[in-house]
Amino acid sequence: MKIKRILILTAAGLLLTGTALFADDTADTLALYSDAFDMIWLVLAAALVFFMQAGFAMVEVGLTRAKNAGNIIMKNLMDFSAGAVAFFAVGWAFMYGSTAGGFIGTDQFFILGADSAVLRDWIFQVVFAATAATIVSGAMAERTKFTSYLIYSVVISAVIYPISGHWIWSGVGWLGNLGFHDFAGSTVVHSVGGWAALAGAIVLGPRMGKYVEVNGKKISKAIPGHNMPLAALGVFILWFGWYGFNCGSTLSGTDLSISHVAVTTTLAASTGAIGAMITSWIQFGRPDPSMSLNGALAGLVGITAGTAVVSPIGSLIIGLVAGILVVLSVEFFDKVLKIDDPVGAVSVHGVCGVWGTIAVGLFAVPGALDNAGLFYGGGAAQLGIQALGAVSVFAWVFILALLLFTIISKTVGLRVDSKDELEGLDTSEHGMESYSGFQIFSNM
Amino acid sequence: MKIKRILILTAAGLLLTGTALFADDTADTLALYSDAFDMIWLVLAAALVFFMQAGFAMVEVGLTRAKNAGNIIMKNLMDFSAGAVAFFAVGWAFMYGSTAGGFIGTDQFFILGADSAVLRDWIFQVVFAATAATIVSGAMAERTKFTSYLIYSVVISAVIYPISGHWIWSGVGWLGNLGFHDFAGSTVVHSVGGWAALAGAIVLGPRMGKYVEVNGKKISKAIPGHNMPLAALGVFILWFGWYGFNCGSTLSGTDLSISHVAVTTTLAASTGAIGAMITSWIQFGRPDPSMSLNGALAGLVGITAGTAVVSPIGSLIIGLVAGILVVLSVEFFDKVLKIDDPVGAVSVHGVCGVWGTIAVGLFAVPGALDNAGLFYGGGAAQLGIQALGAVSVFAWVFILALLLFTIISKTVGLRVDSKDELEGLDTSEHGMESYSGFQIFSNM
Amino acid sequence: MKIKRILILTAAGLLLTGTALFADDTADTLALYSDAFDMIWLVLAAALVFFMQAGFAMVEVGLTRAKNAGNIIMKNLMDFSAGAVAFFAVGWAFMYGSTAGGFIGTDQFFILGADSAVLRDWIFQVVFAATAATIVSGAMAERTKFTSYLIYSVVISAVIYPISGHWIWSGVGWLGNLGFHDFAGSTVVHSVGGWAALAGAIVLGPRMGKYVEVNGKKISKAIPGHNMPLAALGVFILWFGWYGFNCGSTLSGTDLSISHVAVTTTLAASTGAIGAMITSWIQFGRPDPSMSLNGALAGLVGITAGTAVVSPIGSLIIGLVAGILVVLSVEFFDKVLKIDDPVGAVSVHGVCGVWGTIAVGLFAVPGALDNAGLFYGGGAAQLGIQALGAVSVFAWVFILALLLFTIISKTVGLRVDSKDELEGLDTSEHGMESYSGFQIFSNM
Repeated sequence: MKIKRILILTAAGLLLTGTALFADDTADTLALYSDAFDMIWLVLAAALVFFMQAGFAMVEVGLTRAKNAGNIIMKNLMDFSAGAVAFFAVGWAFMYGSTAGGFIGTDQFFILGADSAVLRDWIFQVVFAATAATIVSGAMAERTKFTSYLIYSVVISAVIYPISGHWIWSGVGWLGNLGFHDFAGSTVVHSVGGWAALAGAIVLGPRMGKYVEVNGKKISKAIPGHNMPLAALGVFILWFGWYGFNCGSTLSGTDLSISHVAVTTTLAASTGAIGAMITSWIQFGRPDPSMSLNGALAGLVGITAGTAVVSPIGSLIIGLVAGILVVLSVEFFDKVLKIDDPVGAVSVHGVCGVWGTIAVGLFAVPGALDNAGLFYGGGAAQLGIQALGAVSVFAWVFILALLLFTIISKTVGLRVDSKDELEGLDTSEHGMESYSGFQIFSNM
Repeated sequence: MKIKRILILTAAGLLLTGTALFADDTADTLALYSDAFDMIWLVLAAALVFFMQAGFAMVEVGLTRAKNAGNIIMKNLMDFSAGAVAFFAVGWAFMYGSTAGGFIGTDQFFILGADSAVLRDWIFQVVFAATAATIVSGAMAERTKFTSYLIYSVVISAVIYPISGHWIWSGVGWLGNLGFHDFAGSTVVHSVGGWAALAGAIVLGPRMGKYVEVNGKKISKAIPGHNMPLAALGVFILWFGWYGFNCGSTLSGTDLSISHVAVTTTLAASTGAIGAMITSWIQFGRPDPSMSLNGALAGLVGITAGTAVVSPIGSLIIGLVAGILVVLSVEFFDKVLKIDDPVGAVSVHGVCGVWGTIAVGLFAVPGALDNAGLFYGGGAAQLGIQALGAVSVFAWVFILALLLFTIISKTVGLRVDSKDELEGLDTSEHGMESYSGFQIFSNM
Repeated sequence: MKIKRILILTAAGLLLTGTALFADDTADTLALYSDAFDMIWLVLAAALVFFMQAGFAMVEVGLTRAKNAGNIIMKNLMDFSAGAVAFFAVGWAFMYGSTAGGFIGTDQFFILGADSAVLRDWIFQVVFAATAATIVSGAMAERTKFTSYLIYSVVISAVIYPISGHWIWSGVGWLGNLGFHDFAGSTVVHSVGGWAALAGAIVLGPRMGKYVEVNGKKISKAIPGHNMPLAALGVFILWFGWYGFNCGSTLSGTDLSISHVAVTTTLAASTGAIGAMITSWIQFGRPDPSMSLNGALAGLVGITAGTAVVSPIGSLIIGLVAGILVVLSVEFFDKVLKIDDPVGAVSVHGVCGVWGTIAVGLFAVPGALDNAGLFYGGGAAQLGIQALGAVSVFAWVFILALLLFTIISKTVGLRVDSKDELEGLDTSEHGMESYSGFQIFSNM
């Protein structure tokens, strides 16, 4: 009898210990796997977003003139390179360090002491910072001094972008605390780039020959880009990279809303291209390739804020509106305001970034956020918060960038001289030509 | 004694409950991870397949003339954009909705009520539908009206592709039920695109100046493409994307046959390029770059059906045959049938798609399917089924596409007028030029 | 009483069995998931590394003349295609087969009997082998016979690369056994390519017109590349693919050091570009785009060996030094040694590959390897081993390649004749032109 009992008790004890050990091991393995999902997901997404640099470079090269192509790729290479170092040194700290009142981060400079999770988050964030910086390049193409470009790239990556980013994405920022929602960065990334671009284009002034006086009236002259296939390639690369940009912004590889994000991203890009094509067809009598390409980008920028909280049908509408908007906006800045933005960066990223931010307040489905969007009976609460965020970031970026570009302009100089601009920046700034051996018309 | 027993019973009870709870939690986590694997895998694979749109665009741009480059990228952008919306509205429903007799799906229009798994499957499928549509573009390049192109793109994505797709991939289709095997779409995607392309090229007729009468005999004149580096870039992009296309078609991220698929895909692409290079060397006396590039694509198309069920050695042979076949087929369509297919789309996708489909019946290793292939002693059973599938899809697509293009031709018109064709579609259809500032020979 | 006991015993027994079964199932599932992580990770990383072929092609096309562009893309296509078949047939066996004394593998020809894990490793390794082969192409551009190129591509992929690779990466090689550390291939891949390139460039001699006699002194003449945007695109593609190259070299999807690798890779590439830009600015008075682009590549090559064992700050320095070094090295080979390397492949891959290998001995953080680096108080032990490895691989590759190229030169001939070189290899070797319709200056 006693032996039996001892046996039973021993068996039970072993079982208990065994189960506990097994449970411990299993829990450890499950935790490792959870980390591995996030690791794989964010590093691959970061690689896709990095590749968007190639997309921006090709779009900007394609939509401008051959004589400046080398300068443009040089800017794109260096804004990432210098921006990455700046974001490593201080940008990350300002964005994700311990907050000072919800306005700015204050530690983690040089990401010292970072473990594998922080390094993972840094690699995903640095490619976003570089995106904001590179957007500016397009609006200031074909006339900006290369040294000045380097300076403002660093300032944007190190200071301007991270601070407004802190407000929204740090988890402790004042805008985020109010309930402002910007899933993947319509405001945090694209509007920041777009409004800095606007400030730059204003301070720089238009390219020579862009606005000509005819009978006392300033007329806008089209300066066609020199390589439409490269521009198209750039847009396809950007669209491709956007799957990393938006889907990766779940920040977790086990978040099953990834597919929802992929679907709304795809549909909005599609209707953006369609919307811009139709609008250009109506306005110019012909379906315009560069407008349609920008329409796809407009749809992508537009869906970026709400991609996780709007329905597929909602995304169709958001993209369509963005596509229409981008054509009207490009015309408005060019023809009415006479601000010369060679690639339409202000309209694509600034204007459609705001549209996407606002659209969250209109189209957010019930249950996704604290407040549903206006069109789903949630009232104007979310809309108000989104508008506040868009305006605040506009004010922060536009004023600071205006100041920055003005200071640069008054000191080292922002613009190349006329002779160099006419000749092209490839020869004047870099002493080379981009298409050696090809016959290219002078002045183009 | 009683207390002891109660203690033992309580301990056992706790253990039982604890184990059960732990088992429940663990099972839930394991199920979530299984979903996460499939999610990450299919969304990343879908992104890769999406990027193939850039590849198709660059191949088609590179192999045609500079004066039509803008039109070509416009077509590529819009067939995806319009096709995605069409596949969202009705295509998915026809392909994967509840079947009507194994012939067509009948519900899930606008993928209403889709959960994360359905959205995941949709994003993977929409990029395949767009691939089928974009293949057609190449064969009809340099002479098709843009509006007509939009119409047939939508019809292919919404109706033609999804219905034959339903027969094979829906799990309840009549061809799938017979045991027809097409792992990643040699027939479902590539032949569908190739045969629609053939119908289009026939109805359109050849480009002006393609066939000239010399002494009463029609002679085929080569019309060289204008940008070989972009064509090569396109092929590399397509090959890259094919890892998403074929490997993603496991549909599961925990399917360990992924590496087998990657290996056979790589080997077949390689021997495809080699086969075409050697064949062109023999035929023309020189190793031809555009043929070799098409050879790599031919190998990829050829392996797509059987990639999971043939051995690495089998894939070497399948690719090699595809590479030889594509050169002979291009010559046959051009010189003998006098059908003008500017990029060889009919040969690459139609002919090699059939070859890949048939090859399953020859090279399937024992155990992979119900029947082994002919060369592995499985007899002609699988071969017969594969042939039946290839013929059925040919008939479905070719007849419908012929009808579609004829209707378009008789109503809105399929082809631009001669003046516009000579001038180039960039200026006539889109009012722009693709290489502003470059000196380009007229008529080229 | 008895019934109670029986019930208790039965319950305990069931519990025991149930727990054991559950534990078994769970352990199986966890093991499957572990395999799935590695599978997804390595196949996606392999796809990224494959895409680097497009990057190499675009860099080489962009930095050489228009008249040879078709030949260059043909070489890039075929070195992968022929190289993959060669690595399938014998390369893998020499590299990873059972060792003969730590010097060469001896079985697994045609990867016969490979299971899913071996196939997975093969697909990841074949893209590395192809990288080594394609590096050579750049240094020998614009003057090499196409058939000769095919021959040496196969020899490198089948014999030269796998054998030194066996020494380091097989787990049983003599250099690996000594503690030589080369995480992702600064030596195994890049130096191998670079030193073979050096041998090729020496045996071939410079391009016609590259060195001209002026007053009895040989002066180096710059032969500018014809397409800077494509060169830049190529660099962005390479950088993008490098996330697969370096991060994938964890060989495991559950290795949480992936993010560390991604961060050091990004920082080194960035400071590489910056270092080269500044150096070129000082040397030539202008920030040079092609040098800056090569600087990014130099930083990437430099970090490849130590990416997992150096700190972020270490990576900043390694990249910066690589960027400076590449400019000085390009000048040295061109102006002092008068060796004509059209794209700077010897400097980028050979010289910076050695630098990266040595840098492991300087910057390895304590705990990462058996010995810390010199700068971390680990003494010169690791440095000595790294130097031994670099020298051994140099000797192996350079001597064998010199022999190979000399044999080819004396038999089938390595170089095209002068008329063909002047005319361009596109027409002479392939009977085509790459930019049909464009006006290109003769002799360029």
